[in-house]
Amino acid sequence: MTTPWKQRYAQRTQRMGSSTIRELLKLTEQPDMISFAGGLPAPELFPVDEFKRAAQRVLKQHGSQALQYSTTEGYLPLREFIVEKMSHYGIQASPENVLITSGSQQALDLIGKLLINSGDLILTESPTYLGALQAWRAYQAEFTTVPIDDDGLQIDLLAEALCGGPKFMYILPNFQNPGGVTLSLDRRQALIEMADRYGVPIIEDDPYGELRFEGNHLPPLVVLDAEKLNGRAHNSDEAGFFRGNVIYLSTFSKTLAPGLRLGWMVAPKSVIRRCVQVKQGMDLHTSSFVQMVAYEVVKKEFLTKHVRRIREVYKERRDIMIGTMLRQFPPGIIWTWPAGGLFLWVTLPTWLDATAVLEKAITHKVAFVPGTAFFPDGSGHNHFRLNFSNAQPAQIEEGIRRLGQVLAEVIENNAQMAYA
Amino acid sequence: MTTPWKQRYAQRTQRMGSSTIRELLKLTEQPDMISFAGGLPAPELFPVDEFKRAAQRVLKQHGSQALQYSTTEGYLPLREFIVEKMSHYGIQASPENVLITSGSQQALDLIGKLLINSGDLILTESPTYLGALQAWRAYQAEFTTVPIDDDGLQIDLLAEALCGGPKFMYILPNFQNPGGVTLSLDRRQALIEMADRYGVPIIEDDPYGELRFEGNHLPPLVVLDAEKLNGRAHNSDEAGFFRGNVIYLSTFSKTLAPGLRLGWMVAPKSVIRRCVQVKQGMDLHTSSFVQMVAYEVVKKEFLTKHVRRIREVYKERRDIMIGTMLRQFPPGIIWTWPAGGLFLWVTLPTWLDATAVLEKAITHKVAFVPGTAFFPDGSGHNHFRLNFSNAQPAQIEEGIRRLGQVLAEVIENNAQMAYA
Repeated sequence: MTTPWKQRYAQRTQRMGSSTIRELLKLTEQPDMISFAGGLPAPELFPVDEFKRAAQRVLKQHGSQALQYSTTEGYLPLREFIVEKMSHYGIQASPENVLITSGSQQALDLIGKLLINSGDLILTESPTYLGALQAWRAYQAEFTTVPIDDDGLQIDLLAEALCGGPKFMYILPNFQNPGGVTLSLDRRQALIEMADRYGVPIIEDDPYGELRFEGNHLPPLVVLDAEKLNGRAHNSDEAGFFRGNVIYLSTFSKTLAPGLRLGWMVAPKSVIRRCVQVKQGMDLHTSSFVQMVAYEVVKKEFLTKHVRRIREVYKERRDIMIGTMLRQFPPGIIWTWPAGGLFLWVTLPTWLDATAVLEKAITHKVAFVPGTAFFPDGSGHNHFRLNFSNAQPAQIEEGIRRLGQVLAEVIENNAQMAYA
Repeated sequence: MTTPWKQRYAQRTQRMGSSTIRELLKLTEQPDMISFAGGLPAPELFPVDEFKRAAQRVLKQHGSQALQYSTTEGYLPLREFIVEKMSHYGIQASPENVLITSGSQQALDLIGKLLINSGDLILTESPTYLGALQAWRAYQAEFTTVPIDDDGLQIDLLAEALCGGPKFMYILPNFQNPGGVTLSLDRRQALIEMADRYGVPIIEDDPYGELRFEGNHLPPLVVLDAEKLNGRAHNSDEAGFFRGNVIYLSTFSKTLAPGLRLGWMVAPKSVIRRCVQVKQGMDLHTSSFVQMVAYEVVKKEFLTKHVRRIREVYKERRDIMIGTMLRQFPPGIIWTWPAGGLFLWVTLPTWLDATAVLEKAITHKVAFVPGTAFFPDGSGHNHFRLNFSNAQPAQIEEGIRRLGQVLAEVIENNAQMAYA
């Protein structure tokens, strides 16, 4: 006898697969496993002492407020902080343009609920963030994709995909997950141009933008869109910067701590008002306690210094990972060289399957995420993603050494079979 | 020029209204307003010092873990605590039957995503919790209702509603929101019987069950369902208690602090596994920091003592509210006498409209929620909900005095018009 629930599941849930990343996270709990699979920040950088002080101060000064219900929009001082922070990247918002979300993942779910009808087409990069695919498959979205190269979305292939009539485009412009690549300025401008021409809005997901190791920060899509819009005569029902074609998402998960589940969405005020209604039905509001403690940690310049420190550490780890790959990986394998973020993307010869490599790698106590998880159509069998933020330098060297050995063996075996 | 988003909203969001409670919460921020509108616990009872100590201990002993990503299922010691706590109410669960949610509201959203297809019929009590209506309207649910009386759901009217073929029933058995009434034992047994006969499962929402001021706790529906099931021969693919017809929801919002956004769902393991997949797409997991701090607060018998204190205070407030209503309300108005929880439910003469009364009441600086918000079909114009947990005794007396005056004036005016 099975439970009576099974035959009652909504049609849409039959299309939701299990998250490969989440399942693989379980493997990382095995002792001796060196995992490059997760998207986890370096825990030794978490500002634990600042959180201790902040929690005390919040509970002492605003205990009742921190533990009580609050408004769906989010804690106003935190929204004001976010507005100030984003202004350094050229984003001119007011607190009414900002909605606090329970991590960026909730913003993706919220966007799905707000925008996607069953069968709607969504345009994503391929590969793309699998959490977005997971969130939107729940609304029975279909996907059309445009591949990325070292400069991000291949803009010359965009027009054809746009002709399919997608509801919106989902773009990770900085140190893309999983690709590690960054959309060039030329392509950003071309993308905004085409979004306008085809009338297709953009969801800009920017969890990693602040973690740039070298080179100059490129303007966010939302800024380029606003500049384009402000260059025109218009008669807006909404004053200010945000009335355009782009919804911008970011998070404290990669700069402060993911365990908070704290992100934000920036959009035209009328869109935020609508999102507030949707979020009410989802969780009423994001934890007041978490919002107030996070604000207390970040409010006095702390975050700027802290992000500088994260950049240094992650840059070193990227360098160690790539340096070790250059020494330990067999020939015929290539990868991206991210200028920031947490991930790099490996391409095997097309006759190799990354999932088969993973099976072998796990027996050698090293893990990664096979590429197919990141392709809406399940392609990408000869790719995998490596995370360089979570493991310590010595672990990275040892893990990449093990992985190099696995790859060498697999290639050797395949070559023998080919010549047998 | 409006934003390009408007014409892209999903069909379903056109049916999502703004939450009356949330909008009214804004009124409660006016100075001198005495609000019985919200569903807010008494903030002076929040165990702020325990939270201070708990936050320190968690960050000192498990700082990295508390700030890092964690599993979707929730923090295992907290799930074990919940299992132990529920066992006192006869619920025999294992941690694999428990999913931590970001408040009960998220559990409602999750159930909508898991179970509801567009046009599905959901059976609710009328009136019922408006957050459930809000969550499920987003999935384009339709509603069929069964009215409540002083003993809860009117079970003799259930068969007719069940013939409409609802996907599931949504029941608040204890100190119902907004009705304040409790489902009698006889009716609980009859409800379980009919759920089984008609093959319609039950969502049992129990946020207030622990806040009983007098009388004996009645067995949860999930327990009665399990007893019925265990009385039969069966061949289960799932060992233990939970394989039945009921999903049980509860929360720490009313016993510890709502600002945490911390609730839980109890269901058969196979259902929990499916819910974990759905929750991954919604917010990855509930804040690890919040879960660990809450566990640190509750773990050593603290919650039992604390809930005892809440019961005393809320009982006193209920008594003061009803005592003042008896003295100050004009004749012709009746209300429920809740044996626990946070709310009571007022019925005006049918020719009076509670929303019109509210408009007048707000000018007298007293607020409540009109009944129509709680009826899926928008009926219930002559009812309103009063919250007795949030205001202090002196405020309750003064607020009810003001409200009595408003009601007397409204009735007087109407009578004059009738005789004019």
